[in-house]
Amino acid sequence: MNDVTILEALKQALRRLPGVGPKSAGRMAYHLLERDREGAREIAQALTNALERIVHCRRCNNLSESDLCPLCTSPRRDKSLLCVVESPSDLVSLDQSGVYNGLYFVLMGRLSPLDGIGPDEIGIPHLETLLDEGTIKEVVLATNLTVEGEATAHFIGELVRARHIKATRIAYGVPIGGELEFTDRNTLARALAGRREA
Amino acid sequence: MNDVTILEALKQALRRLPGVGPKSAGRMAYHLLERDREGAREIAQALTNALERIVHCRRCNNLSESDLCPLCTSPRRDKSLLCVVESPSDLVSLDQSGVYNGLYFVLMGRLSPLDGIGPDEIGIPHLETLLDEGTIKEVVLATNLTVEGEATAHFIGELVRARHIKATRIAYGVPIGGELEFTDRNTLARALAGRREA
Repeated sequence: MNDVTILEALKQALRRLPGVGPKSAGRMAYHLLERDREGAREIAQALTNALERIVHCRRCNNLSESDLCPLCTSPRRDKSLLCVVESPSDLVSLDQSGVYNGLYFVLMGRLSPLDGIGPDEIGIPHLETLLDEGTIKEVVLATNLTVEGEATAHFIGELVRARHIKATRIAYGVPIGGELEFTDRNTLARALAGRREA
Repeated sequence: MNDVTILEALKQALRRLPGVGPKSAGRMAYHLLERDREGAREIAQALTNALERIVHCRRCNNLSESDLCPLCTSPRRDKSLLCVVESPSDLVSLDQSGVYNGLYFVLMGRLSPLDGIGPDEIGIPHLETLLDEGTIKEVVLATNLTVEGEATAHFIGELVRARHIKATRIAYGVPIGGELEFTDRNTLARALAGRREA
């Protein structure tokens, strides 16, 4: 409408959220202004706080409120194990599984040469420094099981083995509760190839 | 992870956006912090600006940057026509159709007794004041064609007619490009009942 430019600016800004197109952005803007101004204030404040206070952990590269994150400084974590993941959300998912007690390294992405994302962009030089420290005995490659995630795991695996450190990859297979009938052929092939004695 | 409470606060805040659940909120938070801090800043700023500067037009109740919105003060608008809509986005959609040149009144909702939304909550007393001014000759009821929108239109229609002002309702029918095969039965019934000479 005419010169309601501040409203337009808000809609444009909200479109920077992932998965939000023009329609959703409009709906969000109207919702916040008409029915939840308190919520709008809360979001603006939370964003500002996060921008000011959340940095990357100097060691694992995860999002952190301090120079070293609580995981990296925890005395209860096994420092001989390092799990490499693509993103902080992957780290959270894995850690919530409760079976892993080592440290992490967050790449903040994956190798994607076509998008100009090479080893430097995902912190490989820093990862190599950690490997060279000599405390890590096994690197668990937990990048996604996509083409790019696989390529990234393969690339890092080479670097790890070149240092005579054990490199492992999380297992492919049928997910728990998964029905064979609805599982894709490649996953089934991998599940068969990776079969173990019961 | 552990005590990253600022990140948690951000995720919680983002869940106040309509249609955003815990997963999307997490994805948005990570996206903004990892890949688009500039975007996060823009959103926070746009929200703060909007909260400070956007008010309701004293006359039509639409969102506005000034006490009276540009529509209400426009000399090119037909002041004898008043179109009643539920929300600012409905107003924008209708106005973009380009066939209406009158003024608007935005209810900011619809009657919904079960949710405690009665006439006072959607500005009916203010609407009545406008009707009593004597300049309005026709009220176009453009609330949504839902049960609540219909009830709201019916309620306002009574008030309008009681003042000997013409009340009209936007037409039901098959949308343009709509295929009869995929149009629901009620819409078809209305489209038939509302048929006109071709």
